[in-house]
Amino acid sequence: MTRFRLTIEYDGTGYVGWQRQENGPSIQQAIEEAVFAFAAERVNLAAAGRTDAGVHALGQVAHLDLSRETSADTLRDAVNFHLKPQPIAILAVEAVGEDFHARFSATGRRYLYRIVNRRTPLALMRNRAWQVAVALDAVAMHEAAQRLIGNHDFTSFRSSICQAASPVKTLDRLDVEREGEEIRVHAAARSFLHHQVRNMVGTLKLVGERRWRADDVSAALAARSRSAAGPTAPAEGLFLAEVRY
Amino acid sequence: MTRFRLTIEYDGTGYVGWQRQENGPSIQQAIEEAVFAFAAERVNLAAAGRTDAGVHALGQVAHLDLSRETSADTLRDAVNFHLKPQPIAILAVEAVGEDFHARFSATGRRYLYRIVNRRTPLALMRNRAWQVAVALDAVAMHEAAQRLIGNHDFTSFRSSICQAASPVKTLDRLDVEREGEEIRVHAAARSFLHHQVRNMVGTLKLVGERRWRADDVSAALAARSRSAAGPTAPAEGLFLAEVRY
Repeated sequence: MTRFRLTIEYDGTGYVGWQRQENGPSIQQAIEEAVFAFAAERVNLAAAGRTDAGVHALGQVAHLDLSRETSADTLRDAVNFHLKPQPIAILAVEAVGEDFHARFSATGRRYLYRIVNRRTPLALMRNRAWQVAVALDAVAMHEAAQRLIGNHDFTSFRSSICQAASPVKTLDRLDVEREGEEIRVHAAARSFLHHQVRNMVGTLKLVGERRWRADDVSAALAARSRSAAGPTAPAEGLFLAEVRY
Repeated sequence: MTRFRLTIEYDGTGYVGWQRQENGPSIQQAIEEAVFAFAAERVNLAAAGRTDAGVHALGQVAHLDLSRETSADTLRDAVNFHLKPQPIAILAVEAVGEDFHARFSATGRRYLYRIVNRRTPLALMRNRAWQVAVALDAVAMHEAAQRLIGNHDFTSFRSSICQAASPVKTLDRLDVEREGEEIRVHAAARSFLHHQVRNMVGTLKLVGERRWRADDVSAALAARSRSAAGPTAPAEGLFLAEVRY
Protein backbone atom coordinates (compact mmCIF):
# COMPACT_ATOMS: atom_id res chain seq x y z
CA MET A 1 0.00 0.00 0.00
CA THR A 2 1.45 3.35 -1.04
CA ARG A 3 0.07 6.78 -0.21
CA PHE A 4 0.17 9.26 -3.10
CA ARG A 5 -0.23 13.01 -2.97
CA LEU A 6 -1.99 14.54 -5.99
CA THR A 7 -1.91 18.19 -7.07
CA ILE A 8 -5.02 18.94 -9.10
CA GLU A 9 -6.33 21.68 -11.41
CA TYR A 10 -10.01 21.85 -12.30
CA ASP A 11 -12.76 23.94 -13.75
CA GLY A 12 -15.54 23.57 -11.19
CA THR A 13 -18.28 24.69 -13.58
CA GLY A 14 -20.98 22.04 -13.82
CA TYR A 15 -19.76 20.08 -10.80
CA VAL A 16 -21.54 19.91 -7.45
CA GLY A 17 -18.16 20.65 -5.84
CA TRP A 18 -15.19 18.62 -4.66
CA GLN A 19 -17.12 16.22 -2.49
CA ARG A 20 -19.21 13.25 -3.65
CA GLN A 21 -22.91 13.99 -3.53
CA GLU A 22 -26.04 12.22 -4.68
CA ASN A 23 -27.29 15.13 -6.75
CA GLY A 24 -24.62 15.43 -9.43
CA PRO A 25 -21.04 14.91 -10.58
CA SER A 26 -18.23 15.82 -8.20
CA ILE A 27 -14.52 16.29 -8.74
CA GLN A 28 -13.80 13.63 -6.11
CA GLN A 29 -15.95 11.04 -7.86
CA ALA A 30 -14.44 11.81 -11.27
CA ILE A 31 -10.89 11.24 -10.01
CA GLU A 32 -11.81 8.17 -7.95
CA GLU A 33 -13.42 6.63 -11.03
CA ALA A 34 -10.36 7.43 -13.15
CA VAL A 35 -8.17 5.72 -10.54
CA PHE A 36 -10.49 2.71 -10.63
CA ALA A 37 -10.32 2.57 -14.43
CA PHE A 38 -6.52 2.37 -14.16
CA ALA A 39 -5.97 0.29 -11.02
CA ALA A 40 -9.26 -1.54 -10.48
CA GLU A 41 -9.23 -0.29 -6.89
CA ARG A 42 -11.87 1.69 -5.04
CA VAL A 43 -9.94 4.50 -3.37
CA ASN A 44 -11.12 7.31 -1.14
CA LEU A 45 -9.65 10.71 -1.96
CA ALA A 46 -9.17 13.18 0.91
CA ALA A 47 -8.69 16.81 -0.18
CA ALA A 48 -7.10 19.83 1.47
CA GLY A 49 -10.17 21.96 0.73
CA ARG A 50 -13.66 20.78 -0.15
CA THR A 51 -14.48 23.40 -2.77
CA ASP A 52 -18.13 24.28 -3.40
CA ALA A 53 -20.08 23.93 -6.64
CA GLY A 54 -18.61 26.15 -9.37
CA VAL A 55 -15.38 26.86 -7.46
CA HIS A 56 -12.15 26.12 -9.33
CA ALA A 57 -8.71 24.91 -8.36
CA LEU A 58 -5.27 25.76 -9.63
CA GLY A 59 -3.57 23.60 -7.04
CA GLN A 60 -5.94 21.48 -4.97
CA VAL A 61 -4.12 18.72 -3.07
CA ALA A 62 -5.55 15.30 -2.23
CA HIS A 63 -4.20 11.93 -1.18
CA LEU A 64 -5.13 8.31 -1.74
CA ASP A 65 -3.81 4.87 -0.80
CA LEU A 66 -3.15 2.36 -3.57
CA SER A 67 -2.33 -1.35 -3.26
CA ARG A 68 -1.26 -1.74 -6.87
CA GLU A 69 2.41 -1.07 -7.39
CA THR A 70 2.96 1.84 -9.73
CA SER A 71 5.20 4.84 -10.12
CA ALA A 72 3.94 8.33 -9.33
CA ASP A 73 4.41 9.41 -12.97
CA THR A 74 2.48 6.42 -14.29
CA LEU A 75 -0.37 7.12 -11.90
CA ARG A 76 -0.45 10.78 -13.00
CA ASP A 77 -0.53 9.99 -16.70
CA ALA A 78 -3.03 7.12 -16.36
CA VAL A 79 -5.47 9.14 -14.26
CA ASN A 80 -5.22 12.07 -16.67
CA PHE A 81 -5.92 9.68 -19.53
CA HIS A 82 -9.05 8.30 -17.87
CA LEU A 83 -10.26 11.76 -16.80
CA LYS A 84 -10.63 12.87 -20.42
CA PRO A 85 -12.61 14.78 -21.58
CA GLN A 86 -13.39 16.28 -18.20
CA PRO A 87 -11.78 19.63 -17.27
CA ILE A 88 -9.76 18.07 -14.47
CA ALA A 89 -5.98 17.65 -14.66
CA ILE A 90 -3.60 15.93 -12.27
CA LEU A 91 -0.61 18.28 -12.33
CA ALA A 92 1.68 16.21 -10.13
CA VAL A 93 1.77 12.96 -8.18
CA GLU A 94 4.24 12.14 -5.43
CA ALA A 95 4.62 9.11 -3.17
CA VAL A 96 4.40 10.24 0.46
CA GLY A 97 4.59 8.66 3.91
CA GLU A 98 1.47 7.27 5.51
CA ASP A 99 1.54 10.09 8.06
CA PHE A 100 0.74 12.58 5.29
CA HIS A 101 -2.87 13.76 5.21
CA ALA A 102 -3.93 16.26 2.54
CA ARG A 103 -6.33 18.01 4.90
CA PHE A 104 -4.80 17.67 8.34
CA SER A 105 -1.15 18.07 7.37
CA ALA A 106 -1.79 21.32 5.49
CA THR A 107 -0.15 24.36 7.08
CA GLY A 108 -1.45 26.97 4.69
CA ARG A 109 -4.06 27.57 2.01
CA ARG A 110 -4.11 30.32 -0.58
CA TYR A 111 -7.17 31.35 -2.57
CA LEU A 112 -7.48 33.67 -5.54
CA TYR A 113 -10.70 35.54 -6.28
CA ARG A 114 -11.03 37.10 -9.73
CA ILE A 115 -13.35 40.02 -10.47
CA VAL A 116 -13.72 41.43 -13.98
CA ASN A 117 -14.79 45.01 -13.46
CA ARG A 118 -16.62 45.99 -16.63
CA ARG A 119 -20.10 46.72 -17.84
CA THR A 120 -20.24 44.07 -20.54
CA PRO A 121 -20.71 40.31 -20.07
CA LEU A 122 -17.81 37.89 -20.02
CA ALA A 123 -17.03 35.74 -23.04
CA LEU A 124 -13.57 34.24 -22.50
CA MET A 125 -13.74 34.51 -18.69
CA ARG A 126 -17.29 33.23 -18.41
CA ASN A 127 -17.76 31.08 -15.28
CA ARG A 128 -14.19 31.93 -14.27
CA ALA A 129 -14.66 35.37 -12.73
CA TRP A 130 -17.28 37.62 -11.13
CA GLN A 131 -18.36 40.30 -13.55
CA VAL A 132 -19.06 43.53 -11.64
CA ALA A 133 -20.43 46.42 -13.70
CA VAL A 134 -20.10 49.28 -11.22
CA ALA A 135 -16.61 50.81 -11.09
CA LEU A 136 -14.69 49.48 -8.09
CA ASP A 137 -11.95 51.30 -6.19
CA ALA A 138 -9.41 48.50 -5.73
CA VAL A 139 -7.12 50.67 -3.60
CA ALA A 140 -9.92 51.31 -1.10
CA MET A 141 -10.74 47.59 -1.16
CA HIS A 142 -7.13 46.71 -0.38
CA GLU A 143 -6.94 49.19 2.50
CA ALA A 144 -10.19 47.94 4.02
CA ALA A 145 -9.06 44.34 3.58
CA GLN A 146 -6.18 44.96 5.98
CA ARG A 147 -8.73 45.39 8.79
CA LEU A 148 -9.37 41.64 8.57
CA ILE A 149 -5.74 40.53 8.86
CA GLY A 150 -4.78 38.71 12.06
CA ASN A 151 -6.43 36.44 14.60
CA HIS A 152 -10.16 37.13 14.84
CA ASP A 153 -13.54 35.61 15.43
CA PHE A 154 -14.77 35.49 11.81
CA THR A 155 -18.40 34.63 12.61
CA SER A 156 -19.56 37.54 10.43
CA PHE A 157 -17.92 35.91 7.40
CA ARG A 158 -18.93 32.33 8.14
CA SER A 159 -21.59 30.33 6.33
CA SER A 160 -24.46 29.14 8.52
CA ILE A 161 -23.66 25.54 7.56
CA CYS A 162 -19.95 25.84 8.44
CA GLN A 163 -18.81 22.79 10.42
CA ALA A 164 -15.60 24.22 11.88
CA ALA A 165 -15.29 23.75 15.64
CA SER A 166 -14.33 27.40 16.16
CA PRO A 167 -14.96 30.65 14.24
CA VAL A 168 -11.55 31.95 15.30
CA LYS A 169 -9.01 31.94 12.48
CA THR A 170 -5.80 33.76 11.64
CA LEU A 171 -5.90 35.55 8.29
CA ASP A 172 -2.35 36.04 7.03
CA ARG A 173 -2.96 37.86 3.78
CA LEU A 174 -5.82 39.63 2.00
CA ASP A 175 -4.44 41.66 -0.89
CA VAL A 176 -6.51 43.38 -3.56
CA GLU A 177 -4.81 44.45 -6.77
CA ARG A 178 -6.06 45.77 -10.07
CA GLU A 179 -4.59 44.86 -13.45
CA GLY A 180 -6.56 46.56 -16.20
CA GLU A 181 -10.21 45.58 -15.91
CA GLU A 182 -9.39 42.67 -13.60
CA ILE A 183 -9.28 42.85 -9.81
CA ARG A 184 -7.55 40.00 -8.02
CA VAL A 185 -8.01 39.21 -4.36
CA HIS A 186 -5.35 36.99 -2.77
CA ALA A 187 -6.27 35.38 0.55
CA ALA A 188 -3.95 33.21 2.65
CA ALA A 189 -4.41 31.50 6.01
CA ARG A 190 -3.71 28.21 7.71
CA SER A 191 -7.37 27.42 7.12
CA PHE A 192 -10.62 29.19 6.32
CA LEU A 193 -14.22 28.93 7.46
CA HIS A 194 -16.88 27.84 4.97
CA HIS A 195 -17.60 30.70 2.53
CA GLN A 196 -15.10 32.93 4.35
CA VAL A 197 -13.27 34.11 1.24
CA ARG A 198 -16.48 34.69 -0.74
CA ASN A 199 -18.04 36.57 2.18
CA MET A 200 -14.95 38.74 2.60
CA VAL A 201 -14.93 39.50 -1.15
CA GLY A 202 -18.65 40.32 -1.13
CA THR A 203 -17.99 42.73 1.73
CA LEU A 204 -14.96 44.34 0.08
CA LYS A 205 -17.07 44.91 -3.03
CA LEU A 206 -19.25 47.25 -0.94
CA VAL A 207 -16.09 49.20 -0.13
CA GLY A 208 -15.08 49.22 -3.80
CA GLU A 209 -18.46 50.72 -4.69
CA ARG A 210 -17.89 53.34 -1.94
CA ARG A 211 -21.04 52.23 -0.15
CA TRP A 212 -18.89 51.11 2.78
CA ARG A 213 -15.71 52.45 4.37
CA ALA A 214 -12.91 50.52 6.02
CA ASP A 215 -14.45 51.32 9.42
CA ASP A 216 -17.63 49.54 8.34
CA VAL A 217 -15.57 46.41 7.67
CA SER A 218 -14.06 46.63 11.15
CA ALA A 219 -17.53 47.05 12.62
CA ALA A 220 -18.86 44.05 10.65
CA LEU A 221 -16.01 41.91 11.97
CA ALA A 222 -16.60 43.06 15.54
CA ALA A 223 -20.34 42.34 15.31
CA ARG A 224 -19.75 38.57 15.10
CA SER A 225 -22.95 38.18 13.15
CA ARG A 226 -23.26 37.00 9.55
CA SER A 227 -25.93 39.62 8.84
CA ALA A 228 -23.47 42.40 9.73
CA ALA A 229 -21.20 41.67 6.75
CA GLY A 230 -21.79 41.88 3.00
CA PRO A 231 -23.31 39.30 0.67
CA THR A 232 -21.55 36.16 -0.52
CA ALA A 233 -19.58 36.68 -3.74
CA PRO A 234 -20.44 34.11 -6.46
CA ALA A 235 -18.60 30.81 -6.66
CA GLU A 236 -17.29 31.22 -10.20
CA GLY A 237 -14.64 33.81 -9.23
CA LEU A 238 -12.99 31.61 -6.60
CA PHE A 239 -9.88 29.48 -7.17
CA LEU A 240 -8.10 27.31 -4.61
CA ALA A 241 -4.63 28.39 -5.69
CA GLU A 242 -2.17 26.58 -3.43
CA VAL A 243 -1.89 24.36 -0.38
CA ARG A 244 1.23 24.32 1.74
CA TYR A 245 2.61 21.56 3.95
CA MET B 1 -28.79 55.07 -41.50
CA THR B 2 -25.95 55.07 -38.99
CA ARG B 3 -22.75 53.08 -39.19
CA PHE B 4 -21.62 51.54 -35.90
CA ARG B 5 -18.25 50.09 -35.01
CA LEU B 6 -18.33 47.13 -32.61
CA THR B 7 -15.45 45.80 -30.51
CA ILE B 8 -16.07 42.14 -29.77
CA GLU B 9 -14.72 39.45 -27.44
CA TYR B 10 -15.52 35.79 -28.07
CA ASP B 11 -14.64 32.23 -27.26
CA GLY B 12 -14.40 30.62 -30.71
CA THR B 13 -14.78 27.06 -29.37
CA GLY B 14 -17.72 25.34 -31.04
CA TYR B 15 -18.08 27.95 -33.79
CA VAL B 16 -17.18 27.43 -37.44
CA GLY B 17 -15.34 30.76 -37.25
CA TRP B 18 -16.25 34.39 -37.73
CA GLN B 19 -17.88 34.03 -41.11
CA ARG B 20 -21.36 32.68 -41.85
CA GLN B 21 -21.24 29.14 -43.21
CA GLU B 22 -23.80 26.49 -43.96
CA ASN B 23 -22.18 23.85 -41.78
CA GLY B 24 -22.54 25.36 -38.32
CA PRO B 25 -22.89 28.38 -36.06
CA SER B 26 -20.67 31.39 -36.74
CA ILE B 27 -19.86 34.44 -34.66
CA GLN B 28 -21.11 36.69 -37.46
CA GLN B 29 -24.49 34.97 -37.59
CA ALA B 30 -24.90 35.06 -33.81
CA ILE B 31 -24.35 38.82 -33.67
CA GLU B 32 -26.46 39.53 -36.76
CA GLU B 33 -29.33 37.58 -35.20
CA ALA B 34 -28.94 39.47 -31.92
CA VAL B 35 -29.11 42.76 -33.84
CA PHE B 36 -32.25 41.51 -35.61
CA ALA B 37 -33.84 40.54 -32.29
CA PHE B 38 -33.31 44.10 -31.09
CA ALA B 39 -33.84 46.19 -34.21
CA ALA B 40 -35.84 43.92 -36.56
CA GLU B 41 -33.29 44.69 -39.27
CA ARG B 42 -31.16 42.29 -41.29
CA VAL B 43 -27.66 43.71 -41.10
CA ASN B 44 -24.43 42.49 -42.64
CA LEU B 45 -21.44 42.57 -40.33
CA ALA B 46 -18.00 43.15 -41.84
CA ALA B 47 -15.07 42.19 -39.60
CA ALA B 48 -11.43 43.24 -39.47
CA GLY B 49 -10.29 39.62 -39.38
CA ARG B 50 -12.26 36.54 -40.36
CA THR B 51 -11.07 34.22 -37.62
CA ASP B 52 -11.10 30.46 -38.25
CA ALA B 53 -13.01 27.81 -36.33
CA GLY B 54 -11.86 27.65 -32.71
CA VAL B 55 -9.92 30.93 -32.85
CA HIS B 56 -10.82 33.50 -30.18
CA ALA B 57 -10.98 37.27 -30.05
CA LEU B 58 -10.16 39.73 -27.30
CA GLY B 59 -10.83 42.72 -29.55
CA GLN B 60 -12.31 41.82 -32.93
CA VAL B 61 -13.75 44.87 -34.72
CA ALA B 62 -16.74 44.84 -37.06
CA HIS B 63 -19.15 47.40 -38.46
CA LEU B 64 -22.81 47.43 -39.45
CA ASP B 65 -25.33 49.93 -40.80
CA LEU B 66 -28.58 50.43 -38.92
CA SER B 67 -31.71 52.36 -40.00
CA ARG B 68 -33.30 52.31 -36.58
CA GLU B 69 -32.29 55.28 -34.48
CA THR B 70 -30.50 54.20 -31.35
CA SER B 71 -27.58 55.22 -29.19
CA ALA B 72 -24.33 53.30 -29.29
CA ASP B 73 -24.70 52.29 -25.63
CA THR B 74 -28.24 51.02 -26.17
CA LEU B 75 -27.11 48.97 -29.14
CA ARG B 76 -24.26 47.48 -27.10
CA ASP B 77 -26.47 46.51 -24.17
CA ALA B 78 -29.31 45.19 -26.34
CA VAL B 79 -27.05 43.04 -28.49
CA ASN B 80 -25.31 41.66 -25.40
CA PHE B 81 -28.72 40.84 -23.94
CA HIS B 82 -29.81 38.94 -27.04
CA LEU B 83 -26.45 37.16 -27.39
CA LYS B 84 -26.92 35.36 -24.07
CA PRO B 85 -25.98 32.67 -23.25
CA GLN B 86 -23.43 32.55 -26.04
CA PRO B 87 -19.77 33.30 -25.16
CA ILE B 88 -19.75 36.46 -27.26
CA ALA B 89 -19.60 39.94 -25.73
CA ILE B 90 -19.82 43.33 -27.39
CA LEU B 91 -17.25 45.32 -25.43
CA ALA B 92 -17.88 48.70 -27.06
CA VAL B 93 -20.03 50.32 -29.73
CA GLU B 94 -19.28 53.64 -31.38
CA ALA B 95 -21.08 55.59 -34.14
CA VAL B 96 -18.65 56.16 -37.02
CA GLY B 97 -18.68 57.86 -40.40
CA GLU B 98 -19.81 55.94 -43.47
CA ASP B 99 -16.23 55.95 -44.79
CA PHE B 100 -15.21 53.64 -41.91
CA HIS B 101 -14.75 50.00 -42.91
CA ALA B 102 -13.73 47.50 -40.24
CA ARG B 103 -11.61 45.53 -42.69
CA PHE B 104 -10.29 48.05 -45.18
CA SER B 105 -9.72 50.95 -42.77
CA ALA B 106 -7.64 48.83 -40.40
CA THR B 107 -4.00 49.91 -40.20
CA GLY B 108 -2.78 47.23 -37.82
CA ARG B 109 -3.71 43.89 -36.35
CA ARG B 110 -2.26 42.23 -33.28
CA TYR B 111 -2.60 38.55 -32.45
CA LEU B 112 -1.73 36.67 -29.29
CA TYR B 113 -0.86 32.98 -29.34
CA ARG B 114 -0.85 31.15 -26.01
CA ILE B 115 1.11 27.96 -25.39
CA VAL B 116 0.95 26.14 -22.06
CA ASN B 117 4.21 24.26 -21.83
CA ARG B 118 3.55 21.35 -19.51
CA ARG B 119 3.18 17.63 -19.61
CA THR B 120 -0.30 17.44 -18.13
CA PRO B 121 -3.59 18.26 -19.90
CA LEU B 122 -5.29 21.63 -19.54
CA ALA B 123 -8.31 22.03 -17.29
CA LEU B 124 -8.90 25.77 -16.84
CA MET B 125 -7.19 26.72 -20.13
CA ARG B 126 -8.79 23.95 -22.16
CA ASN B 127 -9.59 25.14 -25.71
CA ARG B 128 -7.83 28.42 -24.91
CA ALA B 129 -4.19 27.44 -25.37
CA TRP B 130 -1.95 24.91 -27.11
CA GLN B 131 -0.65 22.38 -24.62
CA VAL B 132 2.91 21.39 -25.55
CA ALA B 133 4.48 18.68 -23.42
CA VAL B 134 8.10 18.88 -24.58
CA ALA B 135 10.10 21.62 -22.82
CA LEU B 136 10.40 24.67 -25.07
CA ASP B 137 13.24 27.21 -25.07
CA ALA B 138 11.30 30.48 -25.32
CA VAL B 139 14.47 32.56 -25.58
CA ALA B 140 15.59 30.62 -28.67
CA MET B 141 12.07 30.93 -30.10
CA HIS B 142 12.15 34.70 -29.61
CA GLU B 143 15.55 35.02 -31.26
CA ALA B 144 14.51 32.93 -34.25
CA ALA B 145 11.26 34.88 -34.53
CA GLN B 146 13.25 38.05 -35.28
CA ARG B 147 14.33 36.46 -38.59
CA LEU B 148 10.74 36.92 -39.79
CA ILE B 149 10.44 40.63 -38.95
CA GLY B 150 10.20 43.02 -41.90
CA ASN B 151 8.89 42.96 -45.46
CA HIS B 152 9.01 39.46 -46.93
CA ASP B 153 7.31 37.02 -49.24
CA PHE B 154 5.58 34.85 -46.62
CA THR B 155 4.54 32.07 -49.03
CA SER B 156 6.13 29.50 -46.70
CA PHE B 157 3.73 30.52 -43.93
CA ARG B 158 0.62 30.88 -46.06
CA SER B 159 -2.34 28.51 -46.18
CA SER B 160 -3.03 26.93 -49.56
CA ILE B 161 -6.53 28.43 -49.52
CA CYS B 162 -5.31 31.97 -48.75
CA GLN B 163 -7.11 34.50 -50.94
CA ALA B 164 -4.72 37.44 -50.50
CA ALA B 165 -3.58 39.01 -53.79
CA SER B 166 0.06 38.97 -52.72
CA PRO B 167 2.12 36.85 -50.31
CA VAL B 168 4.27 39.88 -49.47
CA LYS B 169 3.56 41.31 -46.03
CA THR B 170 5.40 43.42 -43.48
CA LEU B 171 5.68 41.78 -40.07
CA ASP B 172 6.20 44.45 -37.41
CA ARG B 173 6.47 42.37 -34.30
CA LEU B 174 6.91 38.72 -33.34
CA ASP B 175 7.82 38.47 -29.66
CA VAL B 176 7.99 35.28 -27.65
CA GLU B 177 7.96 35.50 -23.85
CA ARG B 178 7.64 32.97 -21.08
CA GLU B 179 5.74 33.55 -17.85
CA GLY B 180 5.88 30.42 -15.74
CA GLU B 181 4.50 27.49 -17.72
CA GLU B 182 2.91 29.79 -20.30
CA ILE B 183 4.60 31.00 -23.49
CA ARG B 184 3.00 33.96 -25.22
CA VAL B 185 3.66 34.90 -28.83
CA HIS B 186 2.71 38.45 -29.83
CA ALA B 187 2.41 39.12 -33.56
CA ALA B 188 1.66 42.51 -35.13
CA ALA B 189 1.36 43.63 -38.76
CA ARG B 190 -0.84 45.75 -40.96
CA SER B 191 -2.38 42.49 -42.14
CA PHE B 192 -1.63 38.77 -42.18
CA LEU B 193 -1.98 35.95 -44.68
CA HIS B 194 -4.38 33.10 -43.90
CA HIS B 195 -2.87 30.86 -41.18
CA GLN B 196 0.27 33.02 -41.10
CA VAL B 197 0.40 33.38 -37.31
CA ARG B 198 -0.36 29.70 -36.69
CA ASN B 199 2.24 28.62 -39.25
CA MET B 200 4.87 30.91 -37.72
CA VAL B 201 4.08 29.55 -34.24
CA GLY B 202 4.22 25.95 -35.47
CA THR B 203 7.64 26.71 -36.95
CA LEU B 204 8.93 28.46 -33.82
CA LYS B 205 7.88 25.43 -31.79
CA LEU B 206 10.48 23.42 -33.74
CA VAL B 207 13.07 25.94 -32.58
CA GLY B 208 11.78 25.73 -29.01
CA GLU B 209 12.26 21.96 -29.11
CA ARG B 210 15.82 22.54 -30.45
CA ARG B 211 15.01 20.56 -33.59
CA TRP B 212 15.50 23.75 -35.63
CA ARG B 213 17.85 26.70 -35.33
CA ALA B 214 17.21 30.32 -36.24
CA ASP B 215 19.03 29.73 -39.55
CA ASP B 216 16.47 27.04 -40.42
CA VAL B 217 13.71 29.62 -39.98
CA SER B 218 15.52 32.00 -42.34
CA ALA B 219 15.92 29.18 -44.85
CA ALA B 220 12.23 28.27 -44.61
CA LEU B 221 11.26 31.88 -45.28
CA ALA B 222 13.62 32.10 -48.26
CA ALA B 223 12.26 28.86 -49.75
CA ARG B 224 8.86 30.45 -50.50
CA SER B 225 7.22 27.05 -50.17
CA ARG B 226 4.69 26.03 -47.55
CA SER B 227 6.36 22.62 -47.18
CA ALA B 228 9.62 24.31 -46.13
CA ALA B 229 8.16 25.67 -42.89
CA GLY B 230 6.77 23.93 -39.80
CA PRO B 231 3.27 22.59 -39.18
CA THR B 232 0.23 24.76 -38.42
CA ALA B 233 -0.25 25.38 -34.71
CA PRO B 234 -3.79 24.52 -33.50
CA ALA B 235 -6.56 27.11 -33.62
CA GLU B 236 -7.38 27.09 -29.91
CA GLY B 237 -4.23 29.00 -28.90
CA LEU B 238 -4.90 31.96 -31.20
CA PHE B 239 -6.54 35.22 -30.12
CA LEU B 240 -7.22 38.27 -32.30
CA ALA B 241 -6.11 40.75 -29.65
CA GLU B 242 -6.47 44.19 -31.20
CA VAL B 243 -7.23 46.05 -34.43
CA ARG B 244 -5.91 49.54 -35.03
CA TYR B 245 -7.32 52.28 -37.25
